[in-house]
Amino acid sequence: MGLESASQEKKACLLARAWDWLKALPKSLLGKLLEFGSNTKKIGQDDPRKVIHSVKVGVALTLVSLFYYCQPLFDSFGVSVIWAVMTVVVVFEFSVGATLGKGFNRGMATLLAGALGVGAHHLACLSGHIGEPILLGLFVFVQATTATFIRFFPKIKERYDYGMLIFVLTFSLISVSGFRDDEILKLAKNRLSTILIGASACIIITIVVFPVWAGEDFHNLIANNLEKLGSFLEAFEGEYFKASKDGNSEDNKSLLEAYKSVLSSKNNEESLANFARWEPGHGRFQFRHPWKQYLNIGALTRQCAYRIEALNGHLNTNTQVSQEILSMIQDECTQMCSESSKALKELALAVKTMTKPSLADTHIANSKAATKNLKSLFQSNFREEANLLAVIPATTVASLLVDVVDCTEKIADSVNKLASEANFKSIDSTVSLEESQLQKCEPAHSEPKTDSLHVVIIVG
Amino acid sequence: MGLESASQEKKACLLARAWDWLKALPKSLLGKLLEFGSNTKKIGQDDPRKVIHSVKVGVALTLVSLFYYCQPLFDSFGVSVIWAVMTVVVVFEFSVGATLGKGFNRGMATLLAGALGVGAHHLACLSGHIGEPILLGLFVFVQATTATFIRFFPKIKERYDYGMLIFVLTFSLISVSGFRDDEILKLAKNRLSTILIGASACIIITIVVFPVWAGEDFHNLIANNLEKLGSFLEAFEGEYFKASKDGNSEDNKSLLEAYKSVLSSKNNEESLANFARWEPGHGRFQFRHPWKQYLNIGALTRQCAYRIEALNGHLNTNTQVSQEILSMIQDECTQMCSESSKALKELALAVKTMTKPSLADTHIANSKAATKNLKSLFQSNFREEANLLAVIPATTVASLLVDVVDCTEKIADSVNKLASEANFKSIDSTVSLEESQLQKCEPAHSEPKTDSLHVVIIVG
Repeated sequence: MGLESASQEKKACLLARAWDWLKALPKSLLGKLLEFGSNTKKIGQDDPRKVIHSVKVGVALTLVSLFYYCQPLFDSFGVSVIWAVMTVVVVFEFSVGATLGKGFNRGMATLLAGALGVGAHHLACLSGHIGEPILLGLFVFVQATTATFIRFFPKIKERYDYGMLIFVLTFSLISVSGFRDDEILKLAKNRLSTILIGASACIIITIVVFPVWAGEDFHNLIANNLEKLGSFLEAFEGEYFKASKDGNSEDNKSLLEAYKSVLSSKNNEESLANFARWEPGHGRFQFRHPWKQYLNIGALTRQCAYRIEALNGHLNTNTQVSQEILSMIQDECTQMCSESSKALKELALAVKTMTKPSLADTHIANSKAATKNLKSLFQSNFREEANLLAVIPATTVASLLVDVVDCTEKIADSVNKLASEANFKSIDSTVSLEESQLQKCEPAHSEPKTDSLHVVIIVG
Repeated sequence: MGLESASQEKKACLLARAWDWLKALPKSLLGKLLEFGSNTKKIGQDDPRKVIHSVKVGVALTLVSLFYYCQPLFDSFGVSVIWAVMTVVVVFEFSVGATLGKGFNRGMATLLAGALGVGAHHLACLSGHIGEPILLGLFVFVQATTATFIRFFPKIKERYDYGMLIFVLTFSLISVSGFRDDEILKLAKNRLSTILIGASACIIITIVVFPVWAGEDFHNLIANNLEKLGSFLEAFEGEYFKASKDGNSEDNKSLLEAYKSVLSSKNNEESLANFARWEPGHGRFQFRHPWKQYLNIGALTRQCAYRIEALNGHLNTNTQVSQEILSMIQDECTQMCSESSKALKELALAVKTMTKPSLADTHIANSKAATKNLKSLFQSNFREEANLLAVIPATTVASLLVDVVDCTEKIADSVNKLASEANFKSIDSTVSLEESQLQKCEPAHSEPKTDSLHVVIIVG
């Protein structure tokens, strides 16, 4: 009796739990749905191109599946039409470059592997009824092993990984199917033509309807990363040296955090550069745009971001900094910060608008001059300070800023190289266009003019 | 006549060029072949598991294609066997985790999409001859658009991206094929069962034959990264403070460069962690091993590597450093370097051997003590130095070292957390096993004992 009642209690308990779960189900489902909705809204607002891309995939797939519904189209390919549908699903990527790369890989690999597969099948046929499966198995084994190993080669992995996969797939498919199907040539031909149809549909739709160019994204990413570093330096100047200004510290906080994404942008940059190389000329970019130089700029930008990360560590420490040393170096450090910041922003603008960065050199020269002044300050003006401990944080910041100025100079050289490789426009022709954006930099712009005036006078 | 001779000249020129190309062909082909050979050898030597993986793929593919050659096996599935071959090609990945993830995604997505596809087909059938293709097209469009958009959700992209792709593929395949093929249920069943056969073959072979565990790779990566930072600090100490020792500078150079791979290891760590989560318990790792904590350690290691990057910049500059200040801070900085280095290596060893890092805390305490001494040195002992410019590089290095010590402490906390979450063994039980590896740290090990002795005396 005791056992029975215990098992009844257990049952009741389980039932109660199940009931609770069922009662909670609508609520949790509703919660999930609401979360889904808000996620959808956020992604759609952040990048409406993602919504458009989804619709494009839907349209391409529906179009290709028309082959099934339309009798004359279906008659010419038969059930092979399914390969066209499959091709659309796997080839259609977000950017034009990625789609082209995958389409090219799939097409070429199918062609090559199809031809080899047919050859292998014929060779195997010659060896009689018993030899055929053995020889076919051997072929499949050898090509799968070889191709899988080749996929580990870094250069192949970078650009032709998907092609190698499709090569293995098609070769196995054709050579093995040949064992059961005598119309192997027709099979190979149908597979190739339906894949080409699918890939063409993807490529046409991705290029014609609201194209997303990986090259443009890459270009903007590099420019934005430079901009982020520039903004950090501007905000840093305000935070570190003018601690009294608390008014806009919320804005500053986001500016001071933005650079962190630069630290880990390497993989993103590399894959975008890889996609961009597949793309034809579009808008302001030609077919052989020097994407490699963008990668160099990206690497130098990251170098600079590492220094900035170290600099950022000095914002949040509570160590006491001697006010004396701060006020002594403030002018020069502020100058270094603001001039490097202007230079980086100018470089970002130059990349973004594809114009030669005419003002950046001036800003860099100014920041270099500030560095020099700072050094001579340190050499001469510092005889009474006793407590080095309170001095060190400030000098470390100064030293890191010197590093940042050096990095900025390297970035400027790299951008200049890009400007000459990609034939960036000279600024004069576009000055009226960008005037509003450049106004802030105007005072600095007038400096070199006086400089050249001096030269004229001296030479005169 | 003039025109004719010109065109003849052109032809001759073209012929000569073609001949040159043909003559050069064997040489360039031979060069390519030799390059291929040396690449193969290098990859095979660096990681023999890659060779084994390639052979495993070949074996799996050959085994699955047996279905074609064997009459009774072929009779039960027909041409659907091709899906098994395809599954092997696309699912078989390098590590067990990646293969399991893809296999699970493919299986589940096929099951779900197959069921929905059959349902959609039946629904469309009800709407008559004209309505059927329209309704089918609508279904395909809606599901393709929705699923493509859901792939942008970060959480889905991370773990179920491939599953979403296969969902779109299978749903389109089943629902569209249904328009031409009345045996749609058989089609769906055959697709599901052949995919399950292919996926099982992959999973069994990948787990049974020389398994490559992503978890183990991840575990080792994290430990090696810690080790690299430790080695850098050891080498840095030698290079910066004892410039006279030029004997082993070649060895040092590679130690000083090794940390750079840590800077960009984020993506690698994230994908390995993702694969590791799919893996069942194996060797020293249980199913729910705290991989997230490894990611935390990785992030902190990168933080430390950023500081080290700034430190590395001070090795190669030609700025004059005051010998006076160098000799003043040398002892403390050397202490900070070597103790942090020992702590990091100890933590690496602890992670690698899955034992509690008993000695790391002592090393960190020592480096903290050195930091404290350095600070009081700076406070008291520095009244006569006049030329701050020659002092700054050394103080900056000291300041960065202080940052590194802080980072090391954070890493140690994180490793301790991992040790308690993953139930690392206590070191006492394994001391005989790892004795040889730990011998270097022995002197430091004796220190806490004297400390505890002191306490006993005081308490007593």
